[in-house]
Amino acid sequence: MRVITLLTDFGLEDGYVAAMKGVVATLAPEARLVDVTHLVPPQDVASGRFRLLTIAPYFPPGTIHLAVVDPGVGTARRAVAIRSATGSYFVGPDNGLLLGALEADPPVMAVELSEPRFWRTPTPSTTFHGRDVFAPVAAHLARGVELEELGARADPETLVRLELARWRMLPDGAAGAVQAVDRFGNLISSVPGTVLAGRGRWGASIGARTLPGHRTYGEVPPGDALALVGSHGFVEIAVHRGDARSALGAGVGDPVQVRWE
Amino acid sequence: MRVITLLTDFGLEDGYVAAMKGVVATLAPEARLVDVTHLVPPQDVASGRFRLLTIAPYFPPGTIHLAVVDPGVGTARRAVAIRSATGSYFVGPDNGLLLGALEADPPVMAVELSEPRFWRTPTPSTTFHGRDVFAPVAAHLARGVELEELGARADPETLVRLELARWRMLPDGAAGAVQAVDRFGNLISSVPGTVLAGRGRWGASIGARTLPGHRTYGEVPPGDALALVGSHGFVEIAVHRGDARSALGAGVGDPVQVRWE
Amino acid sequence: MRVITLLTDFGLEDGYVAAMKGVVATLAPEARLVDVTHLVPPQDVASGRFRLLTIAPYFPPGTIHLAVVDPGVGTARRAVAIRSATGSYFVGPDNGLLLGALEADPPVMAVELSEPRFWRTPTPSTTFHGRDVFAPVAAHLARGVELEELGARADPETLVRLELARWRMLPDGAAGAVQAVDRFGNLISSVPGTVLAGRGRWGASIGARTLPGHRTYGEVPPGDALALVGSHGFVEIAVHRGDARSALGAGVGDPVQVRWE
Repeated sequence: MRVITLLTDFGLEDGYVAAMKGVVATLAPEARLVDVTHLVPPQDVASGRFRLLTIAPYFPPGTIHLAVVDPGVGTARRAVAIRSATGSYFVGPDNGLLLGALEADPPVMAVELSEPRFWRTPTPSTTFHGRDVFAPVAAHLARGVELEELGARADPETLVRLELARWRMLPDGAAGAVQAVDRFGNLISSVPGTVLAGRGRWGASIGARTLPGHRTYGEVPPGDALALVGSHGFVEIAVHRGDARSALGAGVGDPVQVRWE
Repeated sequence: MRVITLLTDFGLEDGYVAAMKGVVATLAPEARLVDVTHLVPPQDVASGRFRLLTIAPYFPPGTIHLAVVDPGVGTARRAVAIRSATGSYFVGPDNGLLLGALEADPPVMAVELSEPRFWRTPTPSTTFHGRDVFAPVAAHLARGVELEELGARADPETLVRLELARWRMLPDGAAGAVQAVDRFGNLISSVPGTVLAGRGRWGASIGARTLPGHRTYGEVPPGDALALVGSHGFVEIAVHRGDARSALGAGVGDPVQVRWE
Repeated sequence: MRVITLLTDFGLEDGYVAAMKGVVATLAPEARLVDVTHLVPPQDVASGRFRLLTIAPYFPPGTIHLAVVDPGVGTARRAVAIRSATGSYFVGPDNGLLLGALEADPPVMAVELSEPRFWRTPTPSTTFHGRDVFAPVAAHLARGVELEELGARADPETLVRLELARWRMLPDGAAGAVQAVDRFGNLISSVPGTVLAGRGRWGASIGARTLPGHRTYGEVPPGDALALVGSHGFVEIAVHRGDARSALGAGVGDPVQVRWE
């Protein structure tokens, strides 16, 4: 019984996601569907990429990650399926959405989805490859079809990557930027928490503010801002029982500097 | 292992949907639940009808569609279960919600849910038949109970239909109206895309604007409006990487005309 | 095949819930996941408590309710697992979230989650026990691990309770307050509908308004306010096909009085 995760920007009020699930249920009745999110902001590939990379490590080997944020649907952008070093699969458009999750778990084989016999129809909707190409391909993988059968081999080096979430070491710290904001208003930077290993006291700056580094929210009074290594593994700026995005007037792309003593 | 889809206007913040799922899990532990949407605008039967008709064709034969948008709950409106020509089931209030999906896949048998032994309790809540009548009936169908056992036969011709989504042919085109708007702001008209088969260049008018007909969004520059046959099979008005609802100031009920050369 | 329900304040746009589901799918592939809601207002333990108590009675015996609204994560608040009289399990922070559901189905055994071998890692994230402690513990329960193995016994009497939803009898009625508002704007009071058994005509007052007691919405014209015993079993104030919260300008905490003749 394979797990198929679904991540899209289709929202929850229409039937788009359910149509994809119907296709999967028809072709692979035993597959187990897990929603990641369908509230990626419309056509925001970067945001979808971040969500996918934060969840992939927690799923069992062999999981099939089906992700569709696809502003180029119907154009020449490639549709791909990829197997990672740990044996997980990623199915979706080749626009950078999938490759964030494959930084920690590199691609070992990729194919372009060029075999219509694994699609729902040989003449897919020009606007909804999620239903007509990606969902059926994921279902066939769940049934045991080999990646190689799904289409022509593609060199993993040619897969589209997004040049997001850059960061660099400084003499006494690291510099990056806010790469995502979550529901709680936490500002998630691109600086990995691993740079803090073995360091002493530290802090993080955003705009004109410098916040002290802590282990968890509860170490400061409610309403106070702080920096910590969040559950995603990145340095994060938060307000205890509050919303750092609004309290600090900050958002995606804002520079963040981490400094230690 | 039967699939039960759920469509309601119960929203996602309360426990109403989970209570229904608990009832199903108790009676039919093997049934597989798939959410269609729970964000139908409160008591908007027409909107729920459109969502249901767009997803039903993608589910396997034998699927049980459990749909509850039920402003008349507790009054004399009938509760029904219906079997379609392809062997799918539809369970819900007899208020037009179910019949859209049954235009393409006609009802072959219908019953009024008059047998309390298939309900959660013989004295159901007067406000929540979803939990006390419809969910247990769907679960019993999933377990293999025959439709005929659930209550008295009802003539399919007497089932309530909504006179929505009318359209008509014109000498050189077709005239309809916007029947739904999706998350992306795409304006989905009532004119079926099949009327365009074998035609040459075409366009669609809404308000004072006439938009050129295309195959997909990417055939026009970002920000431009266009017409296309959307994935639902209807003529749709969209803005590439934008929101046609706000860009054109249009919405449900606005007349749409399709013209060809 | 055990059912695990999930209730959190993690929202639907991030990957937090999916990370928890990935952990469960890894440890207990056969467990069946049912979402209650993830839209509890951030850190609103009282609201989460109400949602949980309204759905627990509808799930089969042995269901594991995994609930995480946890403003104290990373501090000294206890993490607990509880077995109820009917054999259901509740896993989450000991902050009052779980105990509402256990008023009708009392706890018979509780443990503090002090055994790291049942966690995802012996060094859990200080901010995300949902993923690293609660989800794996729920998965191990689903696999058949005994409650006693998960940690040191805790006296059920010491579990944190919220002093919410108080109500009292009056000479000719009952007095309580609005304890929750649902998606439809229905005002759900703390007065149990059982107090009305055997009474004659009745009404409910909120602010300066007194509304007549009815059996269901449809007994008054659209737009009219009424009182009824809602599907949760509490006296509720509603507007037929409308929104009582906005129509009456009322909300959580507002006093409600029920009077009968």
